[in-house]
Amino acid sequence: MSLKDIAVVLVRTTHPGNIGATARAMANMGLTDLRLVDPVGYPGQEATARAVGASELLEQASVYTSLDDAISDAGFVVGATARPRRIAWPCSEPEAAMRIALGHSTTTNIAILFGREASGLTNEELDRCHLHVRIPVDDRYPSLNLASAVLIFCYELRRLSIDEDVSIEDHDNTETVLARAGQVNDFFGHLEAVLHEIEFLKYPSSRLLRRIKRIFSKRPLEAQEVNILRGILTSVQHACRNSENTEKHRS
Amino acid sequence: MSLKDIAVVLVRTTHPGNIGATARAMANMGLTDLRLVDPVGYPGQEATARAVGASELLEQASVYTSLDDAISDAGFVVGATARPRRIAWPCSEPEAAMRIALGHSTTTNIAILFGREASGLTNEELDRCHLHVRIPVDDRYPSLNLASAVLIFCYELRRLSIDEDVSIEDHDNTETVLARAGQVNDFFGHLEAVLHEIEFLKYPSSRLLRRIKRIFSKRPLEAQEVNILRGILTSVQHACRNSENTEKHRS
Repeated sequence: MSLKDIAVVLVRTTHPGNIGATARAMANMGLTDLRLVDPVGYPGQEATARAVGASELLEQASVYTSLDDAISDAGFVVGATARPRRIAWPCSEPEAAMRIALGHSTTTNIAILFGREASGLTNEELDRCHLHVRIPVDDRYPSLNLASAVLIFCYELRRLSIDEDVSIEDHDNTETVLARAGQVNDFFGHLEAVLHEIEFLKYPSSRLLRRIKRIFSKRPLEAQEVNILRGILTSVQHACRNSENTEKHRS
Repeated sequence: MSLKDIAVVLVRTTHPGNIGATARAMANMGLTDLRLVDPVGYPGQEATARAVGASELLEQASVYTSLDDAISDAGFVVGATARPRRIAWPCSEPEAAMRIALGHSTTTNIAILFGREASGLTNEELDRCHLHVRIPVDDRYPSLNLASAVLIFCYELRRLSIDEDVSIEDHDNTETVLARAGQVNDFFGHLEAVLHEIEFLKYPSSRLLRRIKRIFSKRPLEAQEVNILRGILTSVQHACRNSENTEKHRS
């Protein structure tokens, strides 16, 4: 179990000082993999200044233009959220969530997503997560600094990984390999195409499609499960294409 | 058990911005009693700016000229320390320490001391404490920001004080209706029929079918999700049946 396989992903951070403070918080707790999606004003002096002793970690941070690219290698994705959401989704507090993440870290890469300072992660970004995590802040002062939120997650990871007696939740991980986010994304693309082919979906993108993806996103899919599901989709397409031929014969 | 009876005491803080950030971290976690011993540059703009939403807490902070005055009402005193000390002293990590502090908070006031940014608490100040606490930072980057250290202590206090029965996991489940086992069973029957129709499955019952069902079983399905999935299956059947007609025409 290593904290090196756990990436902190900051999505569209507005204040570069928070990127520096995040690097410092990660370094304090022994994390090293910082990923930035479309950051504002980065690289720059302010980020470097706030990183204090962690400039090396900051220099090694990867910058991405899309979230999909940033998390393509991750089999388990966690999203930090400040507010309860209307739709149901597995939601947890940091300790339980980081225990689960550490459990998965033995078999796959982990990504923990943090959104914009003002508005957090979008619903679409949260849909990419297997688990949403809410820090139990006081309702009267819920506005937690971005780097502070990162610190709490990293502190939990460090605390749980240090304590040798800590029992990591058993997910029968020994036999299973989780699908990487890229594989899941390819499956979703295939699924969407088939749903249009069978005319279940009639419009390019819809709320309904989001609901359908959510059925498969609420817990991490295994690589083998993705293979099975894609096999089913291919069988459906085979059936459909015969049908299309019929339609052409008829018309 | 109330977090109101637990005071955070900053001793001779050098950077007023850290006082403001401490106020914010405390407010986030539901603590209210901030005490300042001989602070540098306080009150001032920088502290107020960094307090963000917690200006009220900052305004109510008490300022003392001596540590003795600041902790005179406290029956249990905890001191944060960054380095292991040569002398033997009860030393703990934050979770265990805050558990002990919360235990005492039912009978006495608690004070948690944080020292200067550069040098921490002096040996004399640490001698006033019943318990020393060290945050388990990475040895390579041990320099933790003062307000970050306060945040970790306050987070532990809040986490431990939240009633275990108040599980935030349930917060968004009120609007969703889980599918009854009978509905799920009907869906599985429909799914199995379709998988045979599209010739993905070739035998009456298989290990593969069990694996497919498991994809949908690892977390409870909502009633609406079952409806959507059955709608998809019906669309597939419609496509297939056209195809079957073709096959008959062809043979």
